[in-house]
Amino acid sequence: MIRIFEEKMATESTLKYLITDLLTACDVSREDSITTADVLIAAELRDIPSHGLLRLSDYIRMLRTGRINPQAAPQIIHQSPSTVTLDGDNGIGPAVAARAMDLAIEKAENAGTGWVAVQNSNHFGIAGYYAMRALAKDMIGLCMTNANPLVAPTFSAEGLLGTNPFAMAVPAGKKPPLVADFASAAIARGKVDLLHKKGLHIEPGFVQDHEGISSTDPGILTRGGTILPLGSSRQYGSHKGYCLASIVDILSAVLPGANFGPFVPPSVSWLPTKDNLPGKGTGHFFGAIRIDAFRPAKDFKENMDHWIRVFREARPAKGEEKVLIPGDPERMAEEKNSKNGICIQDKVKEQIRELCSELHVSNPLES
Amino acid sequence: MIRIFEEKMATESTLKYLITDLLTACDVSREDSITTADVLIAAELRDIPSHGLLRLSDYIRMLRTGRINPQAAPQIIHQSPSTVTLDGDNGIGPAVAARAMDLAIEKAENAGTGWVAVQNSNHFGIAGYYAMRALAKDMIGLCMTNANPLVAPTFSAEGLLGTNPFAMAVPAGKKPPLVADFASAAIARGKVDLLHKKGLHIEPGFVQDHEGISSTDPGILTRGGTILPLGSSRQYGSHKGYCLASIVDILSAVLPGANFGPFVPPSVSWLPTKDNLPGKGTGHFFGAIRIDAFRPAKDFKENMDHWIRVFREARPAKGEEKVLIPGDPERMAEEKNSKNGICIQDKVKEQIRELCSELHVSNPLES
Repeated sequence: MIRIFEEKMATESTLKYLITDLLTACDVSREDSITTADVLIAAELRDIPSHGLLRLSDYIRMLRTGRINPQAAPQIIHQSPSTVTLDGDNGIGPAVAARAMDLAIEKAENAGTGWVAVQNSNHFGIAGYYAMRALAKDMIGLCMTNANPLVAPTFSAEGLLGTNPFAMAVPAGKKPPLVADFASAAIARGKVDLLHKKGLHIEPGFVQDHEGISSTDPGILTRGGTILPLGSSRQYGSHKGYCLASIVDILSAVLPGANFGPFVPPSVSWLPTKDNLPGKGTGHFFGAIRIDAFRPAKDFKENMDHWIRVFREARPAKGEEKVLIPGDPERMAEEKNSKNGICIQDKVKEQIRELCSELHVSNPLES
Repeated sequence: MIRIFEEKMATESTLKYLITDLLTACDVSREDSITTADVLIAAELRDIPSHGLLRLSDYIRMLRTGRINPQAAPQIIHQSPSTVTLDGDNGIGPAVAARAMDLAIEKAENAGTGWVAVQNSNHFGIAGYYAMRALAKDMIGLCMTNANPLVAPTFSAEGLLGTNPFAMAVPAGKKPPLVADFASAAIARGKVDLLHKKGLHIEPGFVQDHEGISSTDPGILTRGGTILPLGSSRQYGSHKGYCLASIVDILSAVLPGANFGPFVPPSVSWLPTKDNLPGKGTGHFFGAIRIDAFRPAKDFKENMDHWIRVFREARPAKGEEKVLIPGDPERMAEEKNSKNGICIQDKVKEQIRELCSELHVSNPLES
């Protein structure tokens, strides 16, 4: 069933076998390898390639340098009827995160809601993937994580927060689920880097220099610059983006005892971790809310269909075609990419070539 | 103990007696009147006067026209170990909301976390007040509410969402608690109205006209215009503000069966409600998270002190004095206003004069 559509396109199954083979070659269990493959492929399908195959090389470098534990066995270290604190045993992020989300769902089965805070984990890919795991159970799923510090609080010149994403997936009836998955920063680092590579400038309101002065140079991030929170400036509400990023940081890290803010360990093998860390690893926070802990699921889902209809049918602004609901663009991308295959960037193709050669894994992208 | 510092200043206790007298004169119970007074005064103390005494006249007009039920008896209509759905019986918002938050705290005592969704309620003042009720119990408090539709989704010309605020209060050790309380819109309606009254223009990125075209006229809201979500434009991330406002709307309204988005009933007596409402009243959502359901509270609070220290001591951007943490400005205002008294705006003084005369309540602001 392995099939290449054209030079740069690959099917989901090709990629799933490839990623699984590469990870098992690094001593990751088959199950954790498959989960990680699922998460990276979901990012590709949903047109979020910055969190897809592009991460594989970093994950593998971290596994091979001992920065990620390939044989991790996450442990519950604290719990109550509706909560769990999970020690991820420094495992590969997607496997730890999927386990945590499933624990949240299990807790919710009995307690109505389930909440899992995770310490000692690593970069986990797209937050929306985990939130969506709750949908099949008629639950609302929530997921957030802290991340490498790049974002400056309002009034600050220092990058103390990650782009700290927040995701929520809500089941609907006849309509597809609503999936909000968004960062609390004004822009993704990947987008800034892309402008830099292309030699373009960046509009004001996204980045600032090492003194905290607004900049239009996307290369500024390599010279002590930082990304601004959602809202861009105090006048336009950057303190609200800062609040949101702080909330994500506190629930993901201070609550489980992971590293907060500036102490989040790098998600790449070539940067050192800091000394005197206040916690263990990267932190995440997951939630599952059983709909019928609040009202009959059928009523809720009919109501959600109504919500979706009202928002989709809203009058578009002049020049716009139509109003979308959270998750529409990613779902449309998923439909398209599932059918047409996943486009592999040259840089990723090159990385995969190297990894396959290093780990003696056959490379279906070159067959 | 009633004491006026100067013409326009009043003490907390003066105002507490006054509000309580006015509300009990409208058949609101003494307990609910005191709670409402507490909430409105907290807004004044925290320098959020748009949600303080300025709301009293609308609350009373709604009580006197039968739009709010003065003798409401909120009922639990659904529950699980960690959840409650509360029917507010169309009561005065602050009394319903305080009851709901206390139920969330009760649930958390046993289940580790408690989550209360409310239908059939009304405007409840500042969200931060309820979140902060959890602090004394060593819990994290969360609160959100939907509100009258004024905010257009990204790509839309229609106001379908409220400024939908989100609040979270987090206990610390030696440091004061962190209290994030922020709207998901680019600007508060009150600020737009103020610029309009002063005949000033408004910078681009806050409001748009009835066709969804960016406007610098703050009067545009009276002519079919709408407020933009946090992020202002798609380029700067308004879809993230739209996601956040949607999440607040869904948890506050679709989950408990209240009215969502464009159907939220007006919080003033002089605007009619819509026909064919999909739910009951305004909706809110509350959460309480017992810290020691995740880790020992002492460890967490020491870690929060560390978090607060790191962020407060961050290097300020050039031209800025220092970096604040969420809730710092409101707490500083509270300290100042508790000492110096609360400044009463002329418009509010006039409204109170009318209300006192109408309800035969003595007016301490004129004694």
